[in-house]
Amino acid sequence: MPPPGARVCSIAGALEVIGDRWSLLVVRELSLGVHRFNDIALRTGAPRDVLTARLRKLVDVGVVERREYSARPPRFDYLLTQAGLDLAPVLQTLRQWGDDHAVDGLPPTVFTHSCGQPYVPRVHCSACGETALPGSVTRSPREAVAEV
Amino acid sequence: MPPPGARVCSIAGALEVIGDRWSLLVVRELSLGVHRFNDIALRTGAPRDVLTARLRKLVDVGVVERREYSARPPRFDYLLTQAGLDLAPVLQTLRQWGDDHAVDGLPPTVFTHSCGQPYVPRVHCSACGETALPGSVTRSPREAVAEV
Repeated sequence: MPPPGARVCSIAGALEVIGDRWSLLVVRELSLGVHRFNDIALRTGAPRDVLTARLRKLVDVGVVERREYSARPPRFDYLLTQAGLDLAPVLQTLRQWGDDHAVDGLPPTVFTHSCGQPYVPRVHCSACGETALPGSVTRSPREAVAEV
Repeated sequence: MPPPGARVCSIAGALEVIGDRWSLLVVRELSLGVHRFNDIALRTGAPRDVLTARLRKLVDVGVVERREYSARPPRFDYLLTQAGLDLAPVLQTLRQWGDDHAVDGLPPTVFTHSCGQPYVPRVHCSACGETALPGSVTRSPREAVAEV
């Protein structure tokens, strides 16, 4: 429950689940095909105890699935669930913001879309296809909308 | 500097700047027109000492600007810089993911685009306008691209 006065909001809900850098870096690695604990630790730079805790939480909240890939000895790897795959737009927009504002010089990685052009993600309204300009989106509490 | 073996990546760079839930909730409040410390504290639920530290960092990294709105007594409020405004797509995709995966029942807030339809943000390729399907974006280290 949010504290009294705090805004009830899906952004806060999302951040309670994945609102720390290690969790999103884990999701990044899984989305890039890195599935084993040691490799995830190496590629994220996360301390092993932190990574263990984050993976457990991500499994608990349904973003990540733990899969046994060897029975003797028992060995596990990690995969994104559909909820985890659905974080792709968050990672893409974060990456673009990082390219624009958090990197000195040129971005370290070049992304290319299957159309042949550099992949620059843009967010648009799924109904009309237009980019949402500042001030073009209004917000209402659901109760207020239900009363109309 | 990332630890040896860690992936050099703009997502990690972005998360070093805004990779904690309070920072993104602060950016949310500023984007909604809430500019004063006490109001930001109330609407985010952030402890005041945490909020002070986060605001200072956000100012240091250029996401937030502190503005004196009263000289006697000195009083300050907080505004998004252009870099802060550019976080809108991150907040929008986080909100959509929260609506889909981190909220029990119906989303708490209804967003409407100026086209008259519910605002559901979707990410597309800015060059061709298509949604990037899984597997449709390839990534290469910049050095590799430069050598081609």
